[in-house]
Amino acid sequence: MALSFTGSKIDRADHVRADPERLAGYMNWKARLLRLDGLMPALDDSGRLAWGTLADAPEEAELVFLGLDLTDGGEKACFAAVPPRGDATPRMANPQLWSLMATLAPDDLAVYGGARSIVDWHARHRFCAECGGDTKLAKGGWQRDCTSCGASHFPRTDPVAITLVEHDGKLMLGRGKGWPEGRFSALAGFVEPGESIEEGVAREVFEESGVRIRDVSYVASQPWPFPSQLMIGCHAYADDEEVTMDETEMAEILWFTREDIEAAFAGAPSAPFHKPVEQAIATHLMRWWLAR
Amino acid sequence: MALSFTGSKIDRADHVRADPERLAGYMNWKARLLRLDGLMPALDDSGRLAWGTLADAPEEAELVFLGLDLTDGGEKACFAAVPPRGDATPRMANPQLWSLMATLAPDDLAVYGGARSIVDWHARHRFCAECGGDTKLAKGGWQRDCTSCGASHFPRTDPVAITLVEHDGKLMLGRGKGWPEGRFSALAGFVEPGESIEEGVAREVFEESGVRIRDVSYVASQPWPFPSQLMIGCHAYADDEEVTMDETEMAEILWFTREDIEAAFAGAPSAPFHKPVEQAIATHLMRWWLAR
Repeated sequence: MALSFTGSKIDRADHVRADPERLAGYMNWKARLLRLDGLMPALDDSGRLAWGTLADAPEEAELVFLGLDLTDGGEKACFAAVPPRGDATPRMANPQLWSLMATLAPDDLAVYGGARSIVDWHARHRFCAECGGDTKLAKGGWQRDCTSCGASHFPRTDPVAITLVEHDGKLMLGRGKGWPEGRFSALAGFVEPGESIEEGVAREVFEESGVRIRDVSYVASQPWPFPSQLMIGCHAYADDEEVTMDETEMAEILWFTREDIEAAFAGAPSAPFHKPVEQAIATHLMRWWLAR
Repeated sequence: MALSFTGSKIDRADHVRADPERLAGYMNWKARLLRLDGLMPALDDSGRLAWGTLADAPEEAELVFLGLDLTDGGEKACFAAVPPRGDATPRMANPQLWSLMATLAPDDLAVYGGARSIVDWHARHRFCAECGGDTKLAKGGWQRDCTSCGASHFPRTDPVAITLVEHDGKLMLGRGKGWPEGRFSALAGFVEPGESIEEGVAREVFEESGVRIRDVSYVASQPWPFPSQLMIGCHAYADDEEVTMDETEMAEILWFTREDIEAAFAGAPSAPFHKPVEQAIATHLMRWWLAR
């Protein structure tokens, strides 16, 4: 079972980033520029990501080195330009993006997701959090340096724990506030400074549902580029099913049987809920659970 | 086997953070202030973390709500003051801190680690990365808001994958540049935007050692508060032992037998290397491997 947003065929070629001469050598007429309209990707006639040349980037644009595409036996350097504005909105209310995610080839989705996260980070970090001075792109886009105090800043990835909680053969799933009627997923939350994954899982599940869990185990991980999460998929057991819901965050929390979940995955009209989108790690976790 | 920096007995009481009235109600004469000297903790006569009252904080200091200490049946609110300066240095060159880590009780180490990460984040994020304006502490210290453009900023936790690479019953360990002679640990690196944990592990190990790995599995996680990492401990297999070392980052990479590792953990004079500090997850990973 493949995880969405993984499997990019671009080699990040970390050694190039810190070598200004080598990096400059790659910024030639052969280099490829990922074509973006703001944070949205452009597609070519076959529905793949569209690539241009560095000449297609606005003159003043900062360029991020995504890595080297080695797939054709060649060594094509891949770049993306930092757009004027980023987007910190954690959830996508953008139907265009949902339909794009459903149709883009898996390796293209991985390239797009990674590029989106990093150019968005640049667009929202033009100033130094330490002194308020201007920052400029460094190390091929994997760093920003303050032009005033000299502080270095690094792209951000926020770990999120998302957990299937099981009891007596049933799974606890929740519907967040503002989600469409019937759409349920696994409970999730950011792992905070000072927590292990397992502690973060237990805290988040208890905060949202009042349910105490035990025996947390790791299942799988994938990136989620809205804006830049590392989704850490886990499984845990609860000792009982009594829910005390956090009504500031959640609209509903319910326990579903295996039959309920099978019906949701079959898209049956009788299914008591809609499964998460295909690209969400929650979908992967539920498939993993059904296949166990 | 306990993981260091975990097991804090302070309940983060997330529901209090977003409730200004409730939070204000806790900021009374009974509230406890974690005593810090810069980012270093003060200790009481019994070697435990020293706590004062909110009156001990500098008048202008921003206060972070750490949570509620429920251990004595009471409900003591715990705070820490943001120091004038933070410290982005990833490794600790501070012998005082090493000896402190070795003697502090595990639950105190967890409280201190979490508090250190969050107050350090505040001290290094007084300005808005989006517009350069002043920011001020919000939600009990789990957010900063820009007073100019209104952007919200959240504490940062950087996921780091650290991996025991095994082949033919041996483990590959490395000595970073600038590390003391003989000190070896598991290879590690930040998980980047657009990567799963498993992809980050494979990339980092290949970058540093030239070794290709397979069958990555998750072992355990713990926080590391210098400044705020989530250490994600993994195990993987290599197909061969031929190392091509990245000399910009590493001083030595060697393969060690089970006997070598047992000798290092026994502190034998004949041991071919020194094990990592007790509080590092690498130590936990090697113990886990020896016990397998």
